[in-house]
Amino acid sequence: MKVLVLGSGQLAQMMYLAAAPLGVEVKAVDVTDNSIVNPIDKQLYDHDLAIAIDDADAITVEFEHIPEPLLDLVHQSGKLYPNIQAILTGADRVREKQLLDAKGVANCQHIVIREHAQIAEVIPTLGERVIFKSSRDGYDGYGQWRMSSASDLEELEVIFAGLDLAKLPLIAEKMVAFDREISVIGARDKNGHVRLFDIAENLHYQGQLHVSIAPATDVSELIKQKAEDIFTSIAEGLEYVGVLAVELFQTGEELLVNEIAPRVHNSGHWTQDGAETCQFEQHIRAVLDFPLGSTTTYSVTAMVNIIGCTSFSRDLIAIEGCNLHWYGKTLRDKRKMGHINVVADSYQALASKLDTLMACLPSEYFPMLPGEIKRLKAIV
Amino acid sequence: MKVLVLGSGQLAQMMYLAAAPLGVEVKAVDVTDNSIVNPIDKQLYDHDLAIAIDDADAITVEFEHIPEPLLDLVHQSGKLYPNIQAILTGADRVREKQLLDAKGVANCQHIVIREHAQIAEVIPTLGERVIFKSSRDGYDGYGQWRMSSASDLEELEVIFAGLDLAKLPLIAEKMVAFDREISVIGARDKNGHVRLFDIAENLHYQGQLHVSIAPATDVSELIKQKAEDIFTSIAEGLEYVGVLAVELFQTGEELLVNEIAPRVHNSGHWTQDGAETCQFEQHIRAVLDFPLGSTTTYSVTAMVNIIGCTSFSRDLIAIEGCNLHWYGKTLRDKRKMGHINVVADSYQALASKLDTLMACLPSEYFPMLPGEIKRLKAIV
Repeated sequence: MKVLVLGSGQLAQMMYLAAAPLGVEVKAVDVTDNSIVNPIDKQLYDHDLAIAIDDADAITVEFEHIPEPLLDLVHQSGKLYPNIQAILTGADRVREKQLLDAKGVANCQHIVIREHAQIAEVIPTLGERVIFKSSRDGYDGYGQWRMSSASDLEELEVIFAGLDLAKLPLIAEKMVAFDREISVIGARDKNGHVRLFDIAENLHYQGQLHVSIAPATDVSELIKQKAEDIFTSIAEGLEYVGVLAVELFQTGEELLVNEIAPRVHNSGHWTQDGAETCQFEQHIRAVLDFPLGSTTTYSVTAMVNIIGCTSFSRDLIAIEGCNLHWYGKTLRDKRKMGHINVVADSYQALASKLDTLMACLPSEYFPMLPGEIKRLKAIV
Repeated sequence: MKVLVLGSGQLAQMMYLAAAPLGVEVKAVDVTDNSIVNPIDKQLYDHDLAIAIDDADAITVEFEHIPEPLLDLVHQSGKLYPNIQAILTGADRVREKQLLDAKGVANCQHIVIREHAQIAEVIPTLGERVIFKSSRDGYDGYGQWRMSSASDLEELEVIFAGLDLAKLPLIAEKMVAFDREISVIGARDKNGHVRLFDIAENLHYQGQLHVSIAPATDVSELIKQKAEDIFTSIAEGLEYVGVLAVELFQTGEELLVNEIAPRVHNSGHWTQDGAETCQFEQHIRAVLDFPLGSTTTYSVTAMVNIIGCTSFSRDLIAIEGCNLHWYGKTLRDKRKMGHINVVADSYQALASKLDTLMACLPSEYFPMLPGEIKRLKAIV
C-alpha cells in the first residue's frame, strides 16, 4: 500500500522507515514545489502530484503549516487523514483555542487580538506576564513574543503595529507558573479506538524541545486520567484519525493544554526505541485503517535532540542502549539534525547512561542535559 | 556515509532500513545488469557502477553467489568487506571444507568428488546415508541430493553423469543424526573484536528455514563456549569483517559445522526485534569501522518465515509483540515473502502469542509452527 506525506523532512523520513516493514511505501511531497520525492534520499520520482494523489491509499501530513491550495486539493481526494479541519486547527491558534473552549478543555487564559485597540485590554485582563503568539506559523518558537512586565509593552507595540491583525490575529496568553511540561501522544483509528503512549515530560530551551523523558516521572493516576480525557475530548472533537500530540502544562494535579499538533511529534520520538510500536508506525497504521499496535513501554527512555551541531563523537553509538537517529540534513544554526534515544531499565540506569553519553557530546549544544541527569539520579 | 551492497533483495533492503538512522545511505547493485538501485523501491539511480563504487565508503554483499567479474572489480576498489576470499569461501563448499579442516573445526565427514570414479568410494567411506551437495550455488536447498540407502545411488549417478565434476565438484557428506540445528551469528570488526548474538535454533522444512527461536532453549555453557570458539576460529581464519553466520548441528554437547554464510542470515532476523542492535545495523557498523553495538537480547523471540504465501490476516499486526517484516516481492512458490518476529518475556508467553498468530495464518504454509508451539509450551 502507499501513503503520501505532505512535507519531506525528518518526520516523513521516519514514517518511511517505520512503514517499509509493513510493506507500505511512503512518498513525500516537497511542498515548496509539489514535487514527489523519496523521503530518505530526496530522489525525485518521475510522476507528478496528481498521479501521486491518485496512487495513494492514504494521504497525511508531517507538519500543519501546509500551503492551503495544496491542502484543499488533497482534501478533495477524500484520502486525507487527519481531516483538513484537524490540520487547520493545529495550524491556527485561534481555531485551536476555540476548539478547546468548546470542548471545555482547560487551557491558558487568553485574549484573541484581532485589532490593535485590543492590546490595551491585555494587562488589565491577563496581568503583566503575557506571551503573545501569532495565530499561524508559530512553529518551534518562531512568532512568539514575551512580556515580562508592563515596561516591555511599548517595544512590543512597535512590532505589533507592523502586523495585519485582522488577517493574522495574535493570541495574548497569560504566562502560567507551571511545574513542568508534559505531552500525551496517541492515535485514534477510523473506528474511534484510541491508544495512548505513556506520558513524556519535556525540557525546552529557547523555545525548542531539547530532552524528553518517558514515561514521565511521578505521574499520578489522576494526571494520567486527566491527560487521557483531554486527549480523547480533542481527538473526538476533531474526528481525528492518526497520531495526535497534546502538549500540557502541569501544576500540581492540574493540567492546561499548551498546544496541539495534528501529527507525529518530537516528544514522541522516544517510542522508536522505548515502546512496542513507534508513533510513526502507529500513524501509518491509523491512516491506512490497519489495527493499531500495542503502545506498551519497553524501557525508560530519554530522547535527546541534536540541535545545530554535528560535532559529536561517533563512539556514542557504542553505549549500550544508545540509539542515534540522524536526519541527514545540512547543518544550520538551531536546526534539528537528529536525536538520540537512550533506553534503560530504571531512571538511575538512564542517568548513568546519559552521563556516558554526555562525554561524547559538545556540552554547549546540550544545556538541559546535566541538570536532567542530576534530577534522574536523585529519583529513588 | 555510503555503503554499496552487491545484491538488491530483502537483505539489502533491511540493511538500508537499519543504516538510515545512522545517517548511512545504502545503495544496491542489481547483479543481473549491474544497475544501481534503491533497495526498497528498486528505483534506478542515474549513475553507473563505476561511480557507485567510487562514491561508496564500503562495499559489501547480501549473498555469496556474486558473479565473479563483479566481485573482482569490487575487490580491486579496496572497499570490499568481508574480503573476497571470505565471500568465495562461503560460496564454495570445497573451499569451506578446506578452511574448516585447516582450522581444526569439526564438520561432517565428507569426500570431495572431482571425478566420477570417486562416487564408488562414497558408500565404503561414508555409509549409505549421504547428502551430495554441489560445491557452488547450493543456496537454500537447491543443488542437493539425498541418498537414504544404497539403492538410491543408481538414480543419482544418472544425474551426476550430467555434471562437470572437474569444474564443479560435489561434496558427499555423511548424514548425521543430530539433535537440532542451531546457528551462531556475530560480527567481527576491523580491529578483530568479535561480538556474538545469542544462539538461535532453527527449524527447516524441505530445505528452507521456517522458524528460528532465540535464544535457543537449553544451551549449556559448554555449547556456548564451543560455538563461540568455532565462530572465532572461522572469523579469524578468514580475516573476516562484518556479520558472519555459522550453522551448526548439535548432538548432545557436540557441535559440527553445517555451513557458513559470509553475510547477514535469515536465522539472525530475530535480532530486529529481540536484540539491542540488529544484525543489519551491526553489519553496517562493522564494514564502516563504526563501533559495534550491544548484542544483548531483549526478549525471547520467534522468527517465522512467510514462504510462498500472501494470504494471511492483517490482524496479526494487532497481536502484542508481533512484528511483520514484509519484503514487497512478487509471489512465487517457495519464495520468502517476509517474516514475522514475535517477542515475549518467556518461552511460555511466546508459545501463547504464536498460538494467537497461528490463527491469522494459513496453516499449510507454516508446517513447523504447531509442533514448535507445543514444544515451547512444555518448557518449564
